[in-house]
Amino acid sequence: MEKVRAIAAKVSNWGRWGAEDERGTVNYITPEVVRRAAACVRRGEVFSLGLTFGAEGPQIGQGGRVNPLHLMSAVNGALPGYPGEFRYADDVIVMGLQCATQWDSLAHVHYGGRLYNGFPADTTTAAGASRNGIDKLGAGVVSRGVLLDLPRAQGVERLEPGTAIAPADLEAAEKKQGVRVEQGDVLLVRTGHLSAFKANGDRVAYMRMMPGLGLACAEWLHARQVAAIASDTNAVEVIPFEDPALPLPFHMVAIRDMGLLLGEMFDLDALAVDCAGDGVWQFLFSAPPLKVTGGIGSPLNPLAIK
Amino acid sequence: MEKVRAIAAKVSNWGRWGAEDERGTVNYITPEVVRRAAACVRRGEVFSLGLTFGAEGPQIGQGGRVNPLHLMSAVNGALPGYPGEFRYADDVIVMGLQCATQWDSLAHVHYGGRLYNGFPADTTTAAGASRNGIDKLGAGVVSRGVLLDLPRAQGVERLEPGTAIAPADLEAAEKKQGVRVEQGDVLLVRTGHLSAFKANGDRVAYMRMMPGLGLACAEWLHARQVAAIASDTNAVEVIPFEDPALPLPFHMVAIRDMGLLLGEMFDLDALAVDCAGDGVWQFLFSAPPLKVTGGIGSPLNPLAIK
Amino acid sequence: MEKVRAIAAKVSNWGRWGAEDERGTVNYITPEVVRRAAACVRRGEVFSLGLTFGAEGPQIGQGGRVNPLHLMSAVNGALPGYPGEFRYADDVIVMGLQCATQWDSLAHVHYGGRLYNGFPADTTTAAGASRNGIDKLGAGVVSRGVLLDLPRAQGVERLEPGTAIAPADLEAAEKKQGVRVEQGDVLLVRTGHLSAFKANGDRVAYMRMMPGLGLACAEWLHARQVAAIASDTNAVEVIPFEDPALPLPFHMVAIRDMGLLLGEMFDLDALAVDCAGDGVWQFLFSAPPLKVTGGIGSPLNPLAIK
Amino acid sequence: MEKVRAIAAKVSNWGRWGAEDERGTVNYITPEVVRRAAACVRRGEVFSLGLTFGAEGPQIGQGGRVNPLHLMSAVNGALPGYPGEFRYADDVIVMGLQCATQWDSLAHVHYGGRLYNGFPADTTTAAGASRNGIDKLGAGVVSRGVLLDLPRAQGVERLEPGTAIAPADLEAAEKKQGVRVEQGDVLLVRTGHLSAFKANGDRVAYMRMMPGLGLACAEWLHARQVAAIASDTNAVEVIPFEDPALPLPFHMVAIRDMGLLLGEMFDLDALAVDCAGDGVWQFLFSAPPLKVTGGIGSPLNPLAIK
Repeated sequence: MEKVRAIAAKVSNWGRWGAEDERGTVNYITPEVVRRAAACVRRGEVFSLGLTFGAEGPQIGQGGRVNPLHLMSAVNGALPGYPGEFRYADDVIVMGLQCATQWDSLAHVHYGGRLYNGFPADTTTAAGASRNGIDKLGAGVVSRGVLLDLPRAQGVERLEPGTAIAPADLEAAEKKQGVRVEQGDVLLVRTGHLSAFKANGDRVAYMRMMPGLGLACAEWLHARQVAAIASDTNAVEVIPFEDPALPLPFHMVAIRDMGLLLGEMFDLDALAVDCAGDGVWQFLFSAPPLKVTGGIGSPLNPLAIK
Repeated sequence: MEKVRAIAAKVSNWGRWGAEDERGTVNYITPEVVRRAAACVRRGEVFSLGLTFGAEGPQIGQGGRVNPLHLMSAVNGALPGYPGEFRYADDVIVMGLQCATQWDSLAHVHYGGRLYNGFPADTTTAAGASRNGIDKLGAGVVSRGVLLDLPRAQGVERLEPGTAIAPADLEAAEKKQGVRVEQGDVLLVRTGHLSAFKANGDRVAYMRMMPGLGLACAEWLHARQVAAIASDTNAVEVIPFEDPALPLPFHMVAIRDMGLLLGEMFDLDALAVDCAGDGVWQFLFSAPPLKVTGGIGSPLNPLAIK
Repeated sequence: MEKVRAIAAKVSNWGRWGAEDERGTVNYITPEVVRRAAACVRRGEVFSLGLTFGAEGPQIGQGGRVNPLHLMSAVNGALPGYPGEFRYADDVIVMGLQCATQWDSLAHVHYGGRLYNGFPADTTTAAGASRNGIDKLGAGVVSRGVLLDLPRAQGVERLEPGTAIAPADLEAAEKKQGVRVEQGDVLLVRTGHLSAFKANGDRVAYMRMMPGLGLACAEWLHARQVAAIASDTNAVEVIPFEDPALPLPFHMVAIRDMGLLLGEMFDLDALAVDCAGDGVWQFLFSAPPLKVTGGIGSPLNPLAIK
Repeated sequence: MEKVRAIAAKVSNWGRWGAEDERGTVNYITPEVVRRAAACVRRGEVFSLGLTFGAEGPQIGQGGRVNPLHLMSAVNGALPGYPGEFRYADDVIVMGLQCATQWDSLAHVHYGGRLYNGFPADTTTAAGASRNGIDKLGAGVVSRGVLLDLPRAQGVERLEPGTAIAPADLEAAEKKQGVRVEQGDVLLVRTGHLSAFKANGDRVAYMRMMPGLGLACAEWLHARQVAAIASDTNAVEVIPFEDPALPLPFHMVAIRDMGLLLGEMFDLDALAVDCAGDGVWQFLFSAPPLKVTGGIGSPLNPLAIK
């Protein structure tokens, strides 16, 4: 934990946006950043970066997370009292808020009894998160998105599971692609891990071991002042953990100290193909969370608009 | 039903975008329309048009629709095998896909045994909608949004529950506001009905009787070629029904014949105040549905970006 | 709370059945008691004392408790790969474990940071109750049941909501009916409150105010060594509370100090009619809880067999 | 299907208990049978035959069936408005009604468009089963239980997965154990398949292939007039199917033609040890289903009382 605390001391944003702030790095998205993002729309093409929500999802029951149960409450139903031809269907979903493509709220992980910005950890109860919940990000995450396609930049099919991504890898991809991550950007990091899952359907392989950010990236992201980072894996960070005794170190520092929004299981494949085609790796990005009251995460259908 | 069939004959879009089309009027949103929409971003201000999802929602149990159950699967949880300080929270939601701010998919209502574009109604089963499901709209609904604030245009606090909105009302608001609804636009119609609910908390009043579009508006929307229409009520259309024997006639024609996307329970209040302030009633609108496989509707957090 | 603590001191069963006991007064049900119970079966008539589980239930959303959502996961479904005539239906339920007829586990309420038998209250987490959960009562509650029908004994239609039942009322009913509550018995107390709900459907009236045991009954039940007590109301005890500042005092003493099993929303009407008819107020009673791992309560369909 | 229809013709109980009957073979349980059952209680010992309901269950997601999600809606919660020491816990479950130990209702399977007793199959909709639902068996299943322990009778550890049990096997066990299955009995057939799962935790092995009744047993059960049959497997009948092209033939005949109640995933191990010990293979059996309105099945905690 000393490693975590040492890095945390360098990248902490506690107090940066006021003692009551519950939005963290999303605060980097100023109106100017939004205007710059909208100016990225050149062709009018829209890409969905979300997985589907259904029994086909990647969950394997870890920590009680199951794939969505989608259930019909009405099929070919008539309205009581109306004998005519009108018919309707209606449905219900049961799902973990982090079962597929999603944002982690800033209440998702903590250590030392404190959440991001110093709120006590016991502000989260069986009634949900009264501090740092996903509903605090209701005005969403609209910004410039930048995609870094690491396997493409490195000339490989995919990053191997267990590969720790270093700041140098991010910068090499920037250079190769001719783009630079700046303040307020949403950084999308493609590893190819989801592409493998889509091809082979192996949930256990997808969920248990994955390439992802090493802890050293926290400082780089802090320096670049990104608003959010998302990847095509379940954890954004590398698993197995860099230090086997220290679980999810990047989560700890990013969420709890930086107040950095993490997006998981983003499907970046089609977008990557398009960007490789036209050489444009930036776009208008929009991924508003559902405003679940006290929610720890939110399912998403993020969009990239070029 | 003859009334419905007569109007349906005039506004039907079956076949218009091909025999396999499952997206309906969303097809009006061409890349050019998206570019025009992005150009509406002038200030970089983002407005969330979504309700929160929680026990505080408007549902009263009608047709089995209940407010979301938000339940914690982990609070201050440790990872098994890691005795250190890392802690996490995780959660699950149970909700009707149309319990609060939402899109109706084109599989939501039908008559005569046929869904939009002629697909048999029995393509929807207990396994969900294999045709016209909400997942077919995954690339979302990104377009120009236009807000028509009817009570403001008419100089009243709110439209009375039961008020049928006529095309002339829409045109009067356009004129007053200096805006014109065009092809591919998402039209947002504010009635003030939700503002009343937010003030008085009376769920039954909110859900049982409401102002909304009269059936005559279907032809107007068809002529204007809107991509979607949303309102601040539970039904978009007027309740009680114009003809007491004919339930939800606008739903029938709009969804089943036109393939028109309906958005319900949109919170337009803050946006309306802003638009009245700067006189600009258009904006970039984005409301991607969750891609629930075979889903009949999708909860939303729609954004307007000015 | 002094009142509660004073009575608690007299009726506490902590340690009575060992330091690890999680079953409380159910321990009174010895094999001999079970044999005596079985001997009560004379006619071979079975009575169901359970409410139905569905949208028609009594819940009004208090504390997040909603009526069951019963959803079909298959209707007229074929088995994949079998083109023949075989068809099946399958279903899912979402329900509060205490939404209708149910047992409270001994983990349901506490004070002073301790559960029944002194277990720390924090043994209950988001993962459920590791101590005193309903699964600890898996071998069920099979014993002699004794019904005391208070309104019938008092010659009234029903006890008025808010009526506190005193030990003298129980003894008067025993005398009138010619029966005596003894060690290991399950005592069923009919108030007529549920009969009123079944007649008028007024959920709010049923759930908000009710007749029930006064706190003084705790000592009487302790002296009689009953294994469990159940009633036709949502709380067993009287609401409004006898002391307006002290919520659910009987729950506190009964569950936390005595380890007494409470059964709620039992439908005793048909059984009461039968007992009044033949003058026999005892029977074999069986109400096994579902063994929900770590469950706080369990839905039931209790049976009385005469 | 001719095989099924041929046997069905011999064992059909349609009309036997009237045109409106929805209880099937449970009708064999007359008051006299119940009295005889109660007389089986000699020692006052109670055995729970139910699995626990939780994440540890046997489901592997087949046909959308998942293990129960048990979620806390309150942990250490205070009552709003009461600042004192009172605290409570409350919980919610999401589960398939057939996820663990359970009864199949007579609406569970059908062929030829007809349910048991000739009711049209379309009486089951997204709203549940209006005919033959599990709620129709509310007065429960209280009868004499008889356990036949096939591996013990055959001197083996367990029946191999895929073993089809023949009537001769049942009769051999009867003879060996000195017991005879009679009218109205609930027959419990132990195969040892669940014991293997409890030992090795291999869900896929437990759910995919199992020993069980062959189709020929239907006639035997019909002749013996049993009220219900239950086993320690997920299907009661043998899988793989005797005829690979004909899925679940015993289900079809038993449920749809005989109206025979099937109980699945009963844990018979402890009971079997006890019966082998005292040589008494009969007992009072009670397994009341939850009265889920329109339910297709019901989770259970069945009891055997010796």
